[in-house]
Parts: sequence; structure tokens; C-alpha cells
Amino acid sequence: MIQVQAEDYGEYTLIEFTLEGVAEPSILKDLNLPKVDASKGVVISGRGPIWLFCAIVHHYHPVAWIATHDPRLGHVVCESHSRLRTVGEIVKPVEPIII
Amino acid sequence: MIQVQAEDYGEYTLIEFTLEGVAEPSILKDLNLPKVDASKGVVISGRGPIWLFCAIVHHYHPVAWIATHDPRLGHVVCESHSRLRTVGEIVKPVEPIII
Repeated sequence: MIQVQAEDYGEYTLIEFTLEGVAEPSILKDLNLPKVDASKGVVISGRGPIWLFCAIVHHYHPVAWIATHDPRLGHVVCESHSRLRTVGEIVKPVEPIII
Repeated sequence: MIQVQAEDYGEYTLIEFTLEGVAEPSILKDLNLPKVDASKGVVISGRGPIWLFCAIVHHYHPVAWIATHDPRLGHVVCESHSRLRTVGEIVKPVEPIII
């Protein structure tokens, strides 16, 4: 069982997932991921297996750039179609935009 | 410092990486990944951070399908453009092809 939330942080959308119990790969078959503004970046955060992160990254690949949250380092950009962010860059977390 | 090797397993190419020391995101800036036959799958294996796996998965995204090796489960397909493999499927390891 996986729950996924999206939160707007201005430059990027934070996609945060929570797993209940041990994740089985069958959850990938009907992953229901939130729609995002593709002109912004996406940061993916959660405690879960590598294949889950990779599947989520692939799902969002048309967006401007994608980072995964690393508890030690912050948001590490792992792909970018934008001149604003480069692969390998660390994006400093910002406050969410609440309207 | 990262070392990456490719090995032909028939249906897929195994991309195996080894890290020396703690991986820093700056290694993503000049990742030199082996060329593969894009009509086959790619399985990515190694001990490393999530952002490294995600960057490698993105690099190989034009190939038939991509799985990441999970020590508990085996090769978990996390993206597929092929009818041969579905996302969430577990690919059984096979013997390498040595000619």
C-alpha cells in the first residue's frame, strides 16, 4: 500500500510517498501519481526501495528537472531538461507555497 | 570514484557499478556509461545511493526495458517500452553469454 502526496514549492513540486509494510513490485502496476506542472522541477521523497524511486522518476521524466531527496545531502538533481538545474546539483529545500 | 561494467546476458545487459568511498553527486556530471544494445533490456546493479540509480536509469531510458537489482527480490522492472516485460515484473537472473 502506497500513499503519494504532491506539494507546491514554487520552483518544484514535492512528491512525497509513504509505504505501509514491505513494498512489493506489484504496486508499480497501478501507481497513481499526482499530476504536476511539467514546467517546474519535481523532487521525490520517501522511504522506499530503489525500484520505486526509479519508476517514479521515469513517470515524471517530461518535467523540467527531477531530484531525489537524500537524507544526508538534500535534493540531488538526477535528470534535467532545463538550463536552471544541472545533474549532480543539490537543491536547497524551500518553504512550501500555501495559498 | 565510480567504475561501471557492462555484461551481456542475452535478453539484457547487466550494468554493474562499484563505488569507492562515499558517493558525491558531482560524479553525475561526467558519468561515463557503457554503450548498450537498445533493443534489449538493461539491469542496473550496485551498492549506491538512490540518485545514482535514478541518473543511470534515466541515461538508459531509450532501451527496451530497465530493471534495478534488488538484493531481496531480484531484478525489478521499473520501466518498459517493450511488450516482453511489464513494470513491476521480477526478471530471473540468467547466466552471462561468453563467446
